[in-house]
Amino acid sequence: MKSVKIGLLGLGTVGTGVVRIVEGHQEDLANQVATSIEIAKILVKDRTKARNIAIDAAKLTEDPWEIVRDPNIDIIVEVMGGIGQSKEVILEALEQGKHVVTANKDLMALHGPEILTKAREKGCDVFYEASVAGGIPIIRTLIEGFSSDRIKKIMGIVNGTTNYILTKMSQEGAAYADVLKEAQELGYAEADPTSDVEGLDAARKMTILSSLGFRSKVDLEDVTAKGISAVTQEDIQYAKKLGYEVKLLGIAERQDDLISVSVQPTMVKQSHPIASVNGVFNAVYVHGEAVGETMFYGAGAGEMPTATSVVADVVAVVKNMKLGVNGRQAHVSYNVTKQKTDEQIASKYFMLLHVEDRAGVLAQIAQVFSSLDVSIESVMQPSAPNRSGAELIIITHSTSKAAMNRVIDEFEKLAAVQKIKSVYRVEG
Amino acid sequence: MKSVKIGLLGLGTVGTGVVRIVEGHQEDLANQVATSIEIAKILVKDRTKARNIAIDAAKLTEDPWEIVRDPNIDIIVEVMGGIGQSKEVILEALEQGKHVVTANKDLMALHGPEILTKAREKGCDVFYEASVAGGIPIIRTLIEGFSSDRIKKIMGIVNGTTNYILTKMSQEGAAYADVLKEAQELGYAEADPTSDVEGLDAARKMTILSSLGFRSKVDLEDVTAKGISAVTQEDIQYAKKLGYEVKLLGIAERQDDLISVSVQPTMVKQSHPIASVNGVFNAVYVHGEAVGETMFYGAGAGEMPTATSVVADVVAVVKNMKLGVNGRQAHVSYNVTKQKTDEQIASKYFMLLHVEDRAGVLAQIAQVFSSLDVSIESVMQPSAPNRSGAELIIITHSTSKAAMNRVIDEFEKLAAVQKIKSVYRVEG
Repeated sequence: MKSVKIGLLGLGTVGTGVVRIVEGHQEDLANQVATSIEIAKILVKDRTKARNIAIDAAKLTEDPWEIVRDPNIDIIVEVMGGIGQSKEVILEALEQGKHVVTANKDLMALHGPEILTKAREKGCDVFYEASVAGGIPIIRTLIEGFSSDRIKKIMGIVNGTTNYILTKMSQEGAAYADVLKEAQELGYAEADPTSDVEGLDAARKMTILSSLGFRSKVDLEDVTAKGISAVTQEDIQYAKKLGYEVKLLGIAERQDDLISVSVQPTMVKQSHPIASVNGVFNAVYVHGEAVGETMFYGAGAGEMPTATSVVADVVAVVKNMKLGVNGRQAHVSYNVTKQKTDEQIASKYFMLLHVEDRAGVLAQIAQVFSSLDVSIESVMQPSAPNRSGAELIIITHSTSKAAMNRVIDEFEKLAAVQKIKSVYRVEG
Repeated sequence: MKSVKIGLLGLGTVGTGVVRIVEGHQEDLANQVATSIEIAKILVKDRTKARNIAIDAAKLTEDPWEIVRDPNIDIIVEVMGGIGQSKEVILEALEQGKHVVTANKDLMALHGPEILTKAREKGCDVFYEASVAGGIPIIRTLIEGFSSDRIKKIMGIVNGTTNYILTKMSQEGAAYADVLKEAQELGYAEADPTSDVEGLDAARKMTILSSLGFRSKVDLEDVTAKGISAVTQEDIQYAKKLGYEVKLLGIAERQDDLISVSVQPTMVKQSHPIASVNGVFNAVYVHGEAVGETMFYGAGAGEMPTATSVVADVVAVVKNMKLGVNGRQAHVSYNVTKQKTDEQIASKYFMLLHVEDRAGVLAQIAQVFSSLDVSIESVMQPSAPNRSGAELIIITHSTSKAAMNRVIDEFEKLAAVQKIKSVYRVEG
């Protein structure tokens, strides 16, 4: 077999890592696939730009079509991101019979089914391990490792930026805005952090994980997303006092043919393994009917961790090429599932209320919960009441999201409740 | 394709789980491989024994050869354990062209290379995901997920019995012997617990993990093993005071062509992710050159978790059968490595000494360390000295195992040291 030729689309952080691994691990890779792997062409925005890696200038091009239509290229590695040109280019690459490895979560979350269908038609592989949780091989784990099991729940810390911010807030008592600014200076958060802090990035990743885990088609619009911009230091401190950490969790649950997928700041019991995943690290907790509780932990981003997953996918494509079995192992989504309604989504809740400090208020509040069939696990008054009123923390037993919304509606009408300061889902 | 027929060798805990999954998940499995999977024959020790699962008695046999020589059987699933008959039967199954899925760590640690070679010759698959860490898909992760990376270090809590005992000792302050007795009553420890508590079971699993992780041939006799039977409550309490937990860790390290693999009770910093793996849970921490720190957590044993891995391997075999590519994905061990000598194995150490309580003793002790080039990170006197002497805790900087052994030899000759109460490797 002649050497396998890669067309690399993008030479940013991850693209540079891919070059480093393919070149630095030549011998290791050749030992595994008995074929040399070569990066033949690289798409860049500006050929003349200075780079911190030595690259043969003759390999660089600013024209993606030159790469995807080059008959010598076997595999397209797409690490440029975005969903406009990437999609067009990948579909054309498949049309040309080239295999595709991509790290593009936006593309796979929005257009995964279309791309995978095209790949099957053309007998091509499309692998995308790096699109979720960087260096953690969670996609192959869901497809192969748990092929025999029925996955009931996936909980993921799949966005490093927000986990970094929440960890700093928890460990150093800093305010959200200050930590966000620091994260931006360190390059952990983007200048426009919306996609990360509002949970949209996590929602895209949960779309991919839940599709694979439940072997079903999950659409991005089915995933509800709430971010961390409203998380206060007060919430985090109260959580810690009660034995919880606040984490931005993607939560996907399945019960027979009903599923729900959401992203929200969640209070997680400190004894739960995902509660101690700190900083920019990612983790995916998977609860299978037979296997029970498992968790997979590692770097969720960064040049080398993400490149590791990209190149592992390249190795898988090359193995399939040698075996002549490309395009046959695509993910099957045979389960027909329906979204749970808010009446069917159940969890415990934490609620922090600012209330009037007078006799009878607690009874009124308890009456609201009871009349709406929400059972209370505990009520605490975390600090002494003062002139402006009192604070109450309520933790519920498991209840439906709809019932909790009805409680919130009632409290908004109740004079004794001055403010609903925060409401969190509780896990663990 | 006609239905795939399995010959199940063994109907103990794991075998029963395999039957439950294959029968209970018929539809899910058929959706993935577009073929039905059927357990055609089952080897048992006693056909007449009452069982807690409904089995067609006509499928049961007490003769393994009837199964491995049955031309209708495609895949042998070996969950009977042991290394005598299992090896003979598996080699014969391969000779007959049958694929093999096994959960047998002893067999794979001792005879893995011979079995895998035979499988390649015969074009058969041999998969053994369930042999290490039960439900955690760590073997496919090492082979496929990290195919592009160079793994530098693997640390594993791969024996649930000892982790249960150490967790109980740490959390409840109970003595080793009492917890062992309780574990035996609960069925977490065997009547003869030697293989677990002396680290032999963990050593076998580390042989498998390090062979795969380093893509090299590691022999069981190269793995040094020390168990937990000498771990005292005192050690655990001192460890906790200093911010450590005592864990039975398998540690495999690679530096270029030098490797070392060992199992020993280790003090792990509480902030390290593996330190909080408690009870019968297993975890494997993998540090790759490119991917950095990762960890994989889950149930290490038990009927359903282990059966999940076995049946995932069956699914992989069936996929390969349909693709016509069996026997080609066997693990490659192309790295030629040498064992590190004790001079080359480096780590930090914890040492607890009982010494004479008189002026000059500390200076004498410090002199021994210094003369043998072992640098001290900290010295503590954990409790007030009394008539019988004083206790000293010393934590070293990273030093060689050989140097540490020389320190121990010197202390054994030094009158001021009444007793070397314990020595632990320190990680994290």
